[in-house]
Amino acid sequence: MNDRLKELYSFMERKCVDAMLITLPQHIYYLTGFFNEPHKRFMGLVLPKGEEPFLIVPLLDEEKAQKASRVTTIFACADTENPYDLLKEKLPVSISRLGVEEEHLHVARYRAVMAATGAEESIDAGEPLREMRMIKSPEEIGSMKRAIYLIEEVLAAALGHVKPGVTEIEIVAEMEYQMKRLGAEGSAFDSIVLSGEKSSQPHGIPGTRKIQNGELLLFDSGVLVDGYHSDISRTFGVGEIHEKLVDMYDTVLQANLAAISAVQPGVAFATIDHAAREIIAQKGYGKYFLNRVGHGLGLELHEYPSIHGNNHDIVREGMVFTIEPGIYIPQLGGVRIEDNVFVTREGVEVLTSYPKKLTIIGV
Amino acid sequence: MNDRLKELYSFMERKCVDAMLITLPQHIYYLTGFFNEPHKRFMGLVLPKGEEPFLIVPLLDEEKAQKASRVTTIFACADTENPYDLLKEKLPVSISRLGVEEEHLHVARYRAVMAATGAEESIDAGEPLREMRMIKSPEEIGSMKRAIYLIEEVLAAALGHVKPGVTEIEIVAEMEYQMKRLGAEGSAFDSIVLSGEKSSQPHGIPGTRKIQNGELLLFDSGVLVDGYHSDISRTFGVGEIHEKLVDMYDTVLQANLAAISAVQPGVAFATIDHAAREIIAQKGYGKYFLNRVGHGLGLELHEYPSIHGNNHDIVREGMVFTIEPGIYIPQLGGVRIEDNVFVTREGVEVLTSYPKKLTIIGV
Repeated sequence: MNDRLKELYSFMERKCVDAMLITLPQHIYYLTGFFNEPHKRFMGLVLPKGEEPFLIVPLLDEEKAQKASRVTTIFACADTENPYDLLKEKLPVSISRLGVEEEHLHVARYRAVMAATGAEESIDAGEPLREMRMIKSPEEIGSMKRAIYLIEEVLAAALGHVKPGVTEIEIVAEMEYQMKRLGAEGSAFDSIVLSGEKSSQPHGIPGTRKIQNGELLLFDSGVLVDGYHSDISRTFGVGEIHEKLVDMYDTVLQANLAAISAVQPGVAFATIDHAAREIIAQKGYGKYFLNRVGHGLGLELHEYPSIHGNNHDIVREGMVFTIEPGIYIPQLGGVRIEDNVFVTREGVEVLTSYPKKLTIIGV
Repeated sequence: MNDRLKELYSFMERKCVDAMLITLPQHIYYLTGFFNEPHKRFMGLVLPKGEEPFLIVPLLDEEKAQKASRVTTIFACADTENPYDLLKEKLPVSISRLGVEEEHLHVARYRAVMAATGAEESIDAGEPLREMRMIKSPEEIGSMKRAIYLIEEVLAAALGHVKPGVTEIEIVAEMEYQMKRLGAEGSAFDSIVLSGEKSSQPHGIPGTRKIQNGELLLFDSGVLVDGYHSDISRTFGVGEIHEKLVDMYDTVLQANLAAISAVQPGVAFATIDHAAREIIAQKGYGKYFLNRVGHGLGLELHEYPSIHGNNHDIVREGMVFTIEPGIYIPQLGGVRIEDNVFVTREGVEVLTSYPKKLTIIGV
């Protein structure tokens, strides 16, 4: 049994839990090496107290599970079968307290699971997993470094296609093509390429808007390697840009650098957010920096920790998160500069290496 | 107020519900025209009894919501704010029975929502929405037809790149490039291109395996148009293929046609599944057809109805679902032929038009 499973069994012991049901696909992968997206079908890793763990998978994923999973007891459930009946049948122990993933399991399934197992109460099984996942192993850091290297290569290749008249989605298409060519498992999320005033939408959707001279062009993209995400944003000027935009850019860059400088083991996450926010506020852009300064990154695009002004938890060695201050002015444009950082014993290693000095492209 | 919202208010009246909280992004889009993926942030459409509906959105999506939403009362929640406090503050009525989406809301958020609203009990708000969504409007069918047209164009373009020695992911990259070029909003899911024995994995992941002569090549892909999904599978022979594979192909094709013939208003979904399964079983492949014959399709890739052998609900005019029988033989290969069908008053309209006769490619 691997150390991660052992840690969960030990958690169960401490919390007097009779069994745990793990349902988040990323957690099943983290614990077994088997990744599968069951869509709406039921899939679960079951850890019964004092017994070996077993998997319940949709019948049509059984072969994939047998090939990839280190947990080798696998029960398949056909579409015509009731997975909760199967869960009940295979559980070797009687359940009083059940661990379930309270931030993943939806209410309807929770009720079905509680009824099938006969559990009287539940406890959050996600908490020890989120806790473990916050501290990355050297192997995980290796995967993330490869994911970051790939997205930086993709970005560099895509920039060569930027010129006035090209649309946002044509640049996105080029990025996705490069991702595949370079061997990424997939994109970490739908790549964002936003031009001109559209760059003021932090979650805007690329469209057929043509890139024009004198505008900002904002990129936000990432890829998956071994199931791990990269997530990087850079903003460029297309041709010469107005000094107002240059001032926005310089402010965000200073905020990005200040936040990174604030990262070290032992400080509160809020300190990092404040470091960026203070610089942006001093320059008069305070009301245009609406989001938290960063989020944890790993098997999920957004995971713990959350780097915002009200989070007084403490930064620890081994954490990986984004630093992504931005200024978004409606009708004018937006700038975001996003790095991925790794907390070391001494301070911080910035995993992203793409240059951050304002760069003029498309000319 | 649009008819969909009126239908929900009428459901509330019938079920004595004091307010509904809609959280599935697709349902918020269905009701307001505003689509947004809030990731882990809270986003909700609130329908208070006797009052106008309002939206709670993450602060950084406020601009997008203001532009797109037909529900114009919008409250933004910053990352440092507690969205449940905001929900409590804005609710104009006291809540005894609350409608929540029980197949979407996770347990932890459900508890927070129940505590914030003071609700004593909950009822599933998703049920009337899933019910409404099963019957597509002419406008929705129009979007789906465009999504199907696009993926068929993509498939045709990608086939031109297939030849022995090309890898699965190179073909996927070409498909994604074509999707963007043709103006799709995005892919409906990670496109599947599986060659040789890998095609026996219904949810296999394309990789660097090189396509070879004499093998099957299985495609499963779709795109998004106006938020609606297409989902089509075709299987080809690369060069001449063994008669065993031809027999598998012909059997799946007969099963596909038989299932489609069984579709008409008034029959049970099980009948459609049986029609395909019987043919596959008669030819001795019964144990290699593991999945249900189809699933509903629309704003979600997998939605109601579910077309399987134990579903005795009745097919109704206006429904859209997939018909996708398959035979998957480990170490040998798999064949799937998947169409999207629309139930008309008289019977069925097959929305997919890509040819299904066995086609040899890559020569």
